[in-house]
Amino acid sequence: MLSVEEALEQVLSAAQSLLPQKVAARDALGLVLAEDVASDVDSPPHDKSIVDGYAIIAADLAAGPAEFDVLEEVTAGDVPRAQVVSGAAVRIMTGAPLPEGADSVVMVEQSEMLAGSGAGLGRVRLSPRKVTRGQNIMRRAVSMARGDRVLAAGHVLRAIELGLLAEVGRTEVLAIPRPRLAVLATGNELVPPSEKPAPGLIRNSNSPMLVAAAQTAGAVASDLGIARDERRDLEQRIAEGRKADVLVLSGGVSAGVLDLVPAVLSSLGSEPIFHKIRMKPGKPLWFGVKRHGAEQTTLVFGLPGNPASSFVGFELLVRPAIARLSGRSPRASESSAQLAGEFTHRGDRPTFHPSLLAEQGGEPLVRPLRSQGSGDLRVWVEANCLACFPAGDYSLAAGDEVRVRPLS
Amino acid sequence: MLSVEEALEQVLSAAQSLLPQKVAARDALGLVLAEDVASDVDSPPHDKSIVDGYAIIAADLAAGPAEFDVLEEVTAGDVPRAQVVSGAAVRIMTGAPLPEGADSVVMVEQSEMLAGSGAGLGRVRLSPRKVTRGQNIMRRAVSMARGDRVLAAGHVLRAIELGLLAEVGRTEVLAIPRPRLAVLATGNELVPPSEKPAPGLIRNSNSPMLVAAAQTAGAVASDLGIARDERRDLEQRIAEGRKADVLVLSGGVSAGVLDLVPAVLSSLGSEPIFHKIRMKPGKPLWFGVKRHGAEQTTLVFGLPGNPASSFVGFELLVRPAIARLSGRSPRASESSAQLAGEFTHRGDRPTFHPSLLAEQGGEPLVRPLRSQGSGDLRVWVEANCLACFPAGDYSLAAGDEVRVRPLS
Repeated sequence: MLSVEEALEQVLSAAQSLLPQKVAARDALGLVLAEDVASDVDSPPHDKSIVDGYAIIAADLAAGPAEFDVLEEVTAGDVPRAQVVSGAAVRIMTGAPLPEGADSVVMVEQSEMLAGSGAGLGRVRLSPRKVTRGQNIMRRAVSMARGDRVLAAGHVLRAIELGLLAEVGRTEVLAIPRPRLAVLATGNELVPPSEKPAPGLIRNSNSPMLVAAAQTAGAVASDLGIARDERRDLEQRIAEGRKADVLVLSGGVSAGVLDLVPAVLSSLGSEPIFHKIRMKPGKPLWFGVKRHGAEQTTLVFGLPGNPASSFVGFELLVRPAIARLSGRSPRASESSAQLAGEFTHRGDRPTFHPSLLAEQGGEPLVRPLRSQGSGDLRVWVEANCLACFPAGDYSLAAGDEVRVRPLS
Repeated sequence: MLSVEEALEQVLSAAQSLLPQKVAARDALGLVLAEDVASDVDSPPHDKSIVDGYAIIAADLAAGPAEFDVLEEVTAGDVPRAQVVSGAAVRIMTGAPLPEGADSVVMVEQSEMLAGSGAGLGRVRLSPRKVTRGQNIMRRAVSMARGDRVLAAGHVLRAIELGLLAEVGRTEVLAIPRPRLAVLATGNELVPPSEKPAPGLIRNSNSPMLVAAAQTAGAVASDLGIARDERRDLEQRIAEGRKADVLVLSGGVSAGVLDLVPAVLSSLGSEPIFHKIRMKPGKPLWFGVKRHGAEQTTLVFGLPGNPASSFVGFELLVRPAIARLSGRSPRASESSAQLAGEFTHRGDRPTFHPSLLAEQGGEPLVRPLRSQGSGDLRVWVEANCLACFPAGDYSLAAGDEVRVRPLS
């Protein structure tokens, strides 16, 4: 049986970045950029003032405070007309272009208007403690020059990057689109969440859970409903699901008499890659690939039907696959934490246990939660991580180190 | 001037959880639940097998391997009809209800069908190493019993919780809705990203950035475009923005002659709460509240127009406000890291510096990026955190501890 690490390798080698598409910048949040982006402007586009104040020639203040004729006022968005000469100043607002001739800006807080004196906009007395050439000026193109590459292919587009794209005039970019993922629950025992289950039946909790998990992983997820454990119904719904980049089934992959999923998938042309992984819960997980010509492939996951098995299978294998399809790194962040109390492990498979990670005295402390088994979804409500216990029969003491993977 | 901490206190005391609304469970991912949810079913609804195998009476195997008549086969979704008596077994699949009379299940891997013998479904030889009563059975209601509270108000709805809601038949829940946030950029110098700026003009990068930042914070964000620096245009667009729970303006809050935003906001009935914060960048930040009767309030933020100032103001004050409105904890996660190299700080305001946080030898290491000032958005592309430097003139050495806040 494959180890989790081996299974993940096989999934990732079957999963490749989707083909880039043109995407409106406003819809690109969280996507991976698939082109280099160059600026079509200098930023700033002109030498500009970074404060409200007076643009002057610094040498005029070399001997201390002095008075100036105010020639005009420029605000952001204006184009200055006056030329600053010795003894003259231009009143300038934050972001406005520096007038010709000026080489520094004195902040308004260091100025005093002189009443009723001078031509044009009056006279001002400037008394900064110190003036240096270039002060309070942001020079043209220091942030970026026209033609500069400002974003490289592979970069994740966050709020900052969307701002930068706007600054360089890009309202559309080439990016890796969100993978489309379809979820199909299987099982004669399942009824939709809106129904009251008759005796022997339970509600389908996996589909809403897996759709939401796929959304948190960055996929566009759709729900294909519930397939009965019969060849015909399975075939029809699977065929629909394989228009997606990822098809996730739950149930029907164990050794039971109605566990038809692997056989139906194979008969529909999915190439089986593995079945069963050395892990607990989630052992009977099936994975295969359906190729549609050279361009498109559907990754097909058959997750076990128990909610916890399904969830753990998603976290360990489907989430990384979605990341890889999206052009992002598929590796989960793992860290280590100290056990809050004793823990006994039994069994020949590594166990992924719902657990609560918290800080105590600045140190991460993990408490495995008391689970009733892989049918028990309720315990997971309190979990914020998976604690990973290696295979074997052993007992751990409080304070022992355990690997943990945070849940999103 | 207020400290950042004092300003945050004032923002949070003006921000309250929005009124709960009925939300379809499928749209509730990430929302905070606003009611206690009880189960309307037992889970499991019956004693059930957790493996594929044979339901028997454990005492029948007390003396070692034995043979059994197979009475029927039950799969998940079936209701068993046969009663298990001594010497009889029911073939049972994972998830199927345990038949009357049986008290344990032997896994199929420990069975052997006997050819051509016995009545009904044949005879089977079971040879487990050990049998205990109750083995491989999950008892009715051990995960949850009808009437149990399975989720409490205040819980954040993740994939797991949506699965659990489905299990207990809730397709609709009472939850705190996403805050609606409107972004209005102001400034005569701004043109939309789709236009080529004429001399003296720049593109509006703040609106796309702030809309995206608000989305990452969990708000439903809309873009009100660009207002000119004139009373009429500002008034009209602000009036539109105040249908939202949060109105975020950028620009027009400094001391310049066209910085009309605070005056226009006040004249439209927004109660000013503070103007200016001891922080860099972002000092001229304005905050106020517009009350619409007793029920609804709009929080109004006037962020400075420089992109970095706008972004830092959003992170420090708007993001926590959105969290509070959404019913979530508004406190940002902060941690400490070692400086990667020397850093000199000057100035009487705490500085929030775009920085790169990475692990080195298992330790967090932070490198402040070389910024060209608050007009420089490009440097932020490489940043994944804010490094927070206290006010004062001082130099830090490599290895010194610095507070950092991760960026999303």
